[in-house]
Amino acid sequence: MASTQSERRIKIGVLGASGYTGAETLRLAARHPNIEIAALTADRRAGEPIASVFPHLGGLDLPTLTKLDAVAWDTLEAVFCCLPHATTQEVVAGLPAHLKVIDLSADFRLRDTATYAEWYGHEHLAPHLQDSAVYGLTEWARDALADTRLAACPGCYPTGALLPLLPLLRDGLIDPDDIIIDSKSGVTGAGRAPKEAMLFGEVSEGVNAYGIAHHRHTPEMEQELSVAADAPIKISFTPHLLPMNRGILSTIYVKMANGGGSTELRQSLLKAYADAPFVRVVPQGQAPATRHVRGSNHCLIGVFDDRVAGRALVISAIDNLVKGSSGQAIQNFNLMFGLPETAGLEQEPLFP
Amino acid sequence: MASTQSERRIKIGVLGASGYTGAETLRLAARHPNIEIAALTADRRAGEPIASVFPHLGGLDLPTLTKLDAVAWDTLEAVFCCLPHATTQEVVAGLPAHLKVIDLSADFRLRDTATYAEWYGHEHLAPHLQDSAVYGLTEWARDALADTRLAACPGCYPTGALLPLLPLLRDGLIDPDDIIIDSKSGVTGAGRAPKEAMLFGEVSEGVNAYGIAHHRHTPEMEQELSVAADAPIKISFTPHLLPMNRGILSTIYVKMANGGGSTELRQSLLKAYADAPFVRVVPQGQAPATRHVRGSNHCLIGVFDDRVAGRALVISAIDNLVKGSSGQAIQNFNLMFGLPETAGLEQEPLFP
Amino acid sequence: MASTQSERRIKIGVLGASGYTGAETLRLAARHPNIEIAALTADRRAGEPIASVFPHLGGLDLPTLTKLDAVAWDTLEAVFCCLPHATTQEVVAGLPAHLKVIDLSADFRLRDTATYAEWYGHEHLAPHLQDSAVYGLTEWARDALADTRLAACPGCYPTGALLPLLPLLRDGLIDPDDIIIDSKSGVTGAGRAPKEAMLFGEVSEGVNAYGIAHHRHTPEMEQELSVAADAPIKISFTPHLLPMNRGILSTIYVKMANGGGSTELRQSLLKAYADAPFVRVVPQGQAPATRHVRGSNHCLIGVFDDRVAGRALVISAIDNLVKGSSGQAIQNFNLMFGLPETAGLEQEPLFP
Amino acid sequence: MASTQSERRIKIGVLGASGYTGAETLRLAARHPNIEIAALTADRRAGEPIASVFPHLGGLDLPTLTKLDAVAWDTLEAVFCCLPHATTQEVVAGLPAHLKVIDLSADFRLRDTATYAEWYGHEHLAPHLQDSAVYGLTEWARDALADTRLAACPGCYPTGALLPLLPLLRDGLIDPDDIIIDSKSGVTGAGRAPKEAMLFGEVSEGVNAYGIAHHRHTPEMEQELSVAADAPIKISFTPHLLPMNRGILSTIYVKMANGGGSTELRQSLLKAYADAPFVRVVPQGQAPATRHVRGSNHCLIGVFDDRVAGRALVISAIDNLVKGSSGQAIQNFNLMFGLPETAGLEQEPLFP
Repeated sequence: MASTQSERRIKIGVLGASGYTGAETLRLAARHPNIEIAALTADRRAGEPIASVFPHLGGLDLPTLTKLDAVAWDTLEAVFCCLPHATTQEVVAGLPAHLKVIDLSADFRLRDTATYAEWYGHEHLAPHLQDSAVYGLTEWARDALADTRLAACPGCYPTGALLPLLPLLRDGLIDPDDIIIDSKSGVTGAGRAPKEAMLFGEVSEGVNAYGIAHHRHTPEMEQELSVAADAPIKISFTPHLLPMNRGILSTIYVKMANGGGSTELRQSLLKAYADAPFVRVVPQGQAPATRHVRGSNHCLIGVFDDRVAGRALVISAIDNLVKGSSGQAIQNFNLMFGLPETAGLEQEPLFP
Repeated sequence: MASTQSERRIKIGVLGASGYTGAETLRLAARHPNIEIAALTADRRAGEPIASVFPHLGGLDLPTLTKLDAVAWDTLEAVFCCLPHATTQEVVAGLPAHLKVIDLSADFRLRDTATYAEWYGHEHLAPHLQDSAVYGLTEWARDALADTRLAACPGCYPTGALLPLLPLLRDGLIDPDDIIIDSKSGVTGAGRAPKEAMLFGEVSEGVNAYGIAHHRHTPEMEQELSVAADAPIKISFTPHLLPMNRGILSTIYVKMANGGGSTELRQSLLKAYADAPFVRVVPQGQAPATRHVRGSNHCLIGVFDDRVAGRALVISAIDNLVKGSSGQAIQNFNLMFGLPETAGLEQEPLFP
Repeated sequence: MASTQSERRIKIGVLGASGYTGAETLRLAARHPNIEIAALTADRRAGEPIASVFPHLGGLDLPTLTKLDAVAWDTLEAVFCCLPHATTQEVVAGLPAHLKVIDLSADFRLRDTATYAEWYGHEHLAPHLQDSAVYGLTEWARDALADTRLAACPGCYPTGALLPLLPLLRDGLIDPDDIIIDSKSGVTGAGRAPKEAMLFGEVSEGVNAYGIAHHRHTPEMEQELSVAADAPIKISFTPHLLPMNRGILSTIYVKMANGGGSTELRQSLLKAYADAPFVRVVPQGQAPATRHVRGSNHCLIGVFDDRVAGRALVISAIDNLVKGSSGQAIQNFNLMFGLPETAGLEQEPLFP
Repeated sequence: MASTQSERRIKIGVLGASGYTGAETLRLAARHPNIEIAALTADRRAGEPIASVFPHLGGLDLPTLTKLDAVAWDTLEAVFCCLPHATTQEVVAGLPAHLKVIDLSADFRLRDTATYAEWYGHEHLAPHLQDSAVYGLTEWARDALADTRLAACPGCYPTGALLPLLPLLRDGLIDPDDIIIDSKSGVTGAGRAPKEAMLFGEVSEGVNAYGIAHHRHTPEMEQELSVAADAPIKISFTPHLLPMNRGILSTIYVKMANGGGSTELRQSLLKAYADAPFVRVVPQGQAPATRHVRGSNHCLIGVFDDRVAGRALVISAIDNLVKGSSGQAIQNFNLMFGLPETAGLEQEPLFP
């Protein structure tokens, strides 16, 4: 990395800066050595300083929030899209071609636009862009990211499920027809829009499953798992809402494909992520915990033999707002601009 | 129920009254129309009033805590044993024969004393009593409870898993060789003894699995499931610790035995619990939540088709300290003394 | 209490049953020996069963929710108004005269309608009813409640502050010009309407003051404190929002009026509440905690000498939804109908 | 700052690295551009890697934990003492003179060793070192810190109370005889040692005051306030325990000394902290919240007129583990070594 490159400042815009992924992108981008935050949008809060939307960022010298159409696109090199699902396709389609786009929404994650229409309930609004979009699970798309203009950052649940499963499927170690993913998530994945179900009084001191058998992150997972297995895969995926802000723990139940056990699974994972700065296979016997990744871009993975013969468990922990969203977006940005993968992401987890 | 019976006051003792199950037993027993709390023990807190151990019970007129050997057993008719696992067998063996015993520990739950020794790491200390012990999952042991002197109340996880699974196995609806139980629990199941892992700072804002493939509630579940299936069963069971005080949600992944789906499962459950005052199958499409049973003896069960053909989910929610422990103990006490099953247990859940 | 009276069932309606105070009133009323819940209203949820609004009450046999104008008023004897502030005056003004009204809103709490207009921003809409309304801080209004048709139940903060302060002012023990009330509340006091500030992600893991120097519960407190002191009183009152569902802790800083200290304060409180079933002065040296009153109608009060000479602290703990709202409403209902004060309120606190 | 200085790596040791202040010091030091962590001690965990004590730091390349007497002191330039109160004096007395010491305990905070003995219950064990210790409230001790070998970092409560109060007293704006400090703290201030009162089940969903009128942070505050006021000051200080990990909110009730109000107080604070990178006076009308400083070294201060004439409120928010402990320790280290005050402390708060 030449000194000139390491000192380069890339002007970015954050579109949809008033939600949680917006806030988290700002938190990370503000301290990124190669980023200058030059534009912030939030249609309903246009005209306000970021401090009135996010008092915790009030000490930063950031641009005032504007409407989308007030951005001087030609001054920017890249945009992070933190807009709601289903609004991003049109926005991205309208952006000047010189801009690199890191999209945190679901709008460009599904390669098959028919599948998109089926799960999201409307036609894809920018199908001509879909082909050039790279599904940005960083560790599995480094080369493609270096070449793309448009990174579709994975959903939080897919990130936590795919990182442990892709190597195992690729290496043929597990039965592709018997994968059960039981995920436990904090509330921030649901965003900042006021909904009764997300009130403190409704969430605290309790747990429930939701989106059973029809959560929209399912096709994303199946898309990538099918590539790794080289065969169509259907999974059983059940998300749960927990009384915590951040974190996704995915407990994944698998059947061994041809003998073997946790030792073989561990080997596969260690090899797959030997050079991955943010993915760590925890020591044998340790169980990953979301509190050990809070605020960081880390993904922890643990592997266990089940007591039922031929079965094993793989457990992963991520912070849904970092590796599951804004952190992975920064990581993808780094690769898209030829920066070190870890730039701006080197904070340790915050515990307790 | 004759008026004389409904007005009867049965003198009870609570052994081990300074832990969470002790406190919960007191909360319920204090308002039970047929109970008089006549003795309380807590070896390390002997001599203290309950108010110094549990200030929330300070308004009750309760006996002072004593050591176990200071109890006047002949004045009592029944004891609730809230003692730690592995200490109860000897205590119960030493009790006078006229006392009915409701044991909340694990000490008499496993019918096979060799299995007990294997999982608990020491020989059973009262094998002569084991045969007469009734595994007190109330809804499945009403007749036996009416006749027994010794009720072994199920563990909290087994209660949450067995209530939904037993009817389905008995009715031959699900594959007995493919049962995965993913349980999420609040902290009170771990008791009140100070441990680093249970500090607020270690538990809040996070989730982790524990006891993976070797939790001690496993053999209990397998014992009862095997009876229902009339064949030996091995399960995959994984408990998780959540940042909440009370509640266990069990997400259970099953494979249909011979076609059918959630409709058949629902029918089986509705029929099995038509007369059970505390077990409720929730309306189709609703997901049970632990916050909807908090403080009550209720068990909620929901059933869902999986999107993987031939698979289904059964989800149950209980309060681990009530139906999973002290409430079920009271429910068993009621049956052992010919009282209405619901006596003292009619409180609605506390939400939020 | 004659047997006929103790078996009497009074038909009530709950107006505004879809909020938290509605739910809590239902929880208590459903198990009240003298209440039959005969009507439930919730304009926006009319036509739905209570189970779809509050699944935790799904096991009860309750009327379907209706609009206000669908209630058959002549079949009822009393209504609990759990409607939002500022909508209740008109509703109550329109009710038939035979109905007793227990109002949980702020609409009839201020005897001076000009003060009401000043703090609530609009003219009082039923001034002719205000004179007959009794400010229902039960322990201080037993006789008046027995005679009234309209009980205005105190706010949650005033309940927690007035119970400890009224005796001390009446007995002339503290300086009426130097009262500082620092209150800490759970979220349910803010109701169930979706607001960004009440999302789990905004509330958990943090604390802040709000409504500083202008919270609407201030004039209520000053009204009652002034009566007790027989002189106009201005207080410093600051509420804080805490990451918990229930509970208000009020830390009250006072100056002794003429020597003395915590001993005299304690005597005054013990005497004032000697016959109050729900108010308890905790043992010397113990600090009241909200978790010790959760789910109960209790108020705990502790008294401490400050290390600054001539100063003392009085600390109270209540559950804002019970003694601070629905429980006190039931307590007032009991007095209005000549029932035992504790009827339906005898549950012990839920801890943990 | 010369380039050679900015690239300098100072070898430090962290003594008592297995507690929460140890973990937090490591989190910050590990990313400090001028620090190399060369020794870690934890007597009871000696021989273990940090990953087994703090899995969230498992990705760092850190020294194995050792006993105190195994440290090669001559290889180090500075030590951070994160040892329990009352054990630090002897340890520091035994350290070689070339080491700079940043002490996070209470052992060197009180200039008067008699006051220390009175509040801590034993004689000071290193009185000869006390004179050279600097009370390290950074913003008020920059020059002294640059010259000292021993920084006694303030307690978490004193940090939150002194930062807003010192300017106001120095400028003569408030009555020194009428200061009431009501503080609300998360649990991590109590450390990581297992205690019943700190279990999740005991802390969650509740709040209580503790240490009323005798908390050990009181003399520290009075010492520094008295200096600022140039007269002996006694304060009323009451800490409260809240269900959250991090954060202290201090609501401070003051009386204006000679007219004026929040405008004058605000001016005084703005002037005092104009050049302080971590202290921020929030915009008028905003209330500081602890969630807006989480994980950062920031202190937010808000000022409000009370509705009682002549009274005002000053409210501060800090993260007790950062500005209230390890962050301020790093800040002091920076000054002691001539580094930029903000080195290693530039992370934004983590919200939500």
